[in-house]
Amino acid sequence: MKLFRFGAVEREKPGVVWHGRHLDVSAFGEDYDEHFFATDGLHRLARWLEKEAERCPAVDEAVRFGPCIARPSKIVCVGLNYRGHAAETNAPIPREPVLFFKATSALCGANDDLILPRGSEKTDWEVELAVVIGRRAKYVERDEAIAYVAGYALHNDYSEREYQLERGGQWVKGKSCDTFAPLGPYLVTRDEVPDPHDLRLWLKVNGELMQEANTSDLIFDIPTLISYTSQFMTLLPGDVISTGTPAGVGLGRKPPRYLRHGDVVEAGIDGLGTSFQRVIAYERYAETRE
Amino acid sequence: MKLFRFGAVEREKPGVVWHGRHLDVSAFGEDYDEHFFATDGLHRLARWLEKEAERCPAVDEAVRFGPCIARPSKIVCVGLNYRGHAAETNAPIPREPVLFFKATSALCGANDDLILPRGSEKTDWEVELAVVIGRRAKYVERDEAIAYVAGYALHNDYSEREYQLERGGQWVKGKSCDTFAPLGPYLVTRDEVPDPHDLRLWLKVNGELMQEANTSDLIFDIPTLISYTSQFMTLLPGDVISTGTPAGVGLGRKPPRYLRHGDVVEAGIDGLGTSFQRVIAYERYAETRE
Repeated sequence: MKLFRFGAVEREKPGVVWHGRHLDVSAFGEDYDEHFFATDGLHRLARWLEKEAERCPAVDEAVRFGPCIARPSKIVCVGLNYRGHAAETNAPIPREPVLFFKATSALCGANDDLILPRGSEKTDWEVELAVVIGRRAKYVERDEAIAYVAGYALHNDYSEREYQLERGGQWVKGKSCDTFAPLGPYLVTRDEVPDPHDLRLWLKVNGELMQEANTSDLIFDIPTLISYTSQFMTLLPGDVISTGTPAGVGLGRKPPRYLRHGDVVEAGIDGLGTSFQRVIAYERYAETRE
Repeated sequence: MKLFRFGAVEREKPGVVWHGRHLDVSAFGEDYDEHFFATDGLHRLARWLEKEAERCPAVDEAVRFGPCIARPSKIVCVGLNYRGHAAETNAPIPREPVLFFKATSALCGANDDLILPRGSEKTDWEVELAVVIGRRAKYVERDEAIAYVAGYALHNDYSEREYQLERGGQWVKGKSCDTFAPLGPYLVTRDEVPDPHDLRLWLKVNGELMQEANTSDLIFDIPTLISYTSQFMTLLPGDVISTGTPAGVGLGRKPPRYLRHGDVVEAGIDGLGTSFQRVIAYERYAETRE
C-alpha cells in the first residue's frame, strides 16, 4: 500500500493509493500514528479496504499532501552515511553511525513551502530515504531488524548550516526549524519495496540536478541502523529514521550555495514519489499571515 | 497548583495537590498533554476544582508517580549552563546556549528504577530544573518569555558518558536510554514559584551529597533559554526545556564515578519535590521481566 495524509495543515485526513486510485479512508477512523502502527494498523487497514474500498471517496491528486504519518515520538537522523557526502563536508568516514534528532515540529507536507528561518543565509538541502518503524524496537538484532520496518518515505533533511555548525554545541539547532522535515508524499509499505538498498534518489534546485545517488551506497544499511539505534533508545511505532544524504549538498559546493527566497526544490526516490517546494523567506511568509 | 500523574506505567491518571491533599482528577477527563496546555487547561482545571474537589477521591501518597506530564513533542536540554559544571568537564563557558534533545521515550516517574543500559559502565547523574512550556512559542522576545511557562519540575538528565562522548557524533546517544528522564513528581505551576532563579537543587548517591547549587547560578536564565530556543524551533505546549546541571556529576570527579547496580539516587529542588531511584542493571531488570 501507499499511505498518505491530505487536507489542511494539522487537520489532515488519511488516504491510501488502492489499485491506482487515491482514496479517502477517513471512514477507517484512524490516523497514521503510534497507536495505528502498534496495533497492526497496516494489516487491519488492508483487510478493511478489501471490503470498503468501493465506498471510499476518491481524492483529487491536486490536494495538499501533509506529512505521510502523524507526528511521531522522534525523528532520528543519520549523519555522514554516504562516502561522497562525508568527503564533501571534510568529515572522516564514521566508524559507527552518527545519530542526531530533528524536532518533530519541523514536519510538513512534500509540496509545502520551505520557510527560510528569519535572517537565514545558509539553509541547505539533503534528500534522504526515511524508514518508518512499525513495532517497538529495543536491543534488536541486525538480522531481525527489517521486520521492524513499516515502510519507506521520501524526506528532505533541511539544514541551516550556520545554526548547525557555527552557533555552538550540537547539530539540532540547524535541523529543527519549522518546515525542515517534509516527509512523503507517501509512506510505501515494506512489501512494496523489494530492495530498499537499490533506490535512486535525486534532488534539483531550480531544475539543476544537485544530488543523485543510489541507496546501495549507504555506508550503514537499514538493518544496521535500526539495530544500532535500538541499542541507545527505544524506537516506538511510527518513529522515523532518516538514513542520511548523498553528496551534492550546498555546503559541499565551491563556493557553497544556499537556498534563497524564490528558489524551487524538487526531490524524489524511485517508487516513493516526488516533492516540489517553493522557498519562502520567513519575513515574506510572516507578511502573508498578518 | 501542583500537578502529578499516578498509577501504572503508560496508564497514568491525572492528579492535583489541592489544599494539601493529593486528589485523583480523572473525572476532569484530560491528561496533561499538548492539548491540555494549549487550551488553557491549567485555568480550566483550577476552575473545575473549585466546584468538584470535594468529590475527587484522595490518592495515597505511596502510589507510583508517573512523569508529571504526558509525553511531550520534545525535551530540549541545555548543556554546560552552570560555570562549575563547564569547568569540571573541561569545557569552555559557552557564548550562547548549547542545546540538545533527549528522546521522549526516556521519560519515567520520579521514583521509578533507573535501568542501566545493557553493559553500561558510565551512567552518570545530572539534577536539573525543567521548565514546561504552556503556549506555542516561536520567535519569542526575552522580556515576554516567562509568560510561556506553564510550570517547573525536577528532572534528572541521566547520561551515559561513553555513549555520549566516545561513540562518535552527537550527544543524543548518551541521553536517550529508557528511564533516563525521570520528571517530577510534580509540575508546579508558575504562580507557585515566586522566583525560579532562586531554587536550591541537590542530588545524593547512596546518601552522599554530590550536587548542591542554586538556580541563581544559571549562566543563561529561563527567559533567555525560551527566547533563544524559539529562534531555532517552535516550542509546543507541554514541551520541556531542562536548564542544565550544576557541578558534581560523576564525570567531573577524580577519578570519575559512575552508577552501579544497587546504588540509590535521590534528588530534589526546593518547592518542587524529591525523587528516589534505585539503580538496576538492565540484565537484572530483564531477568525479572522474563
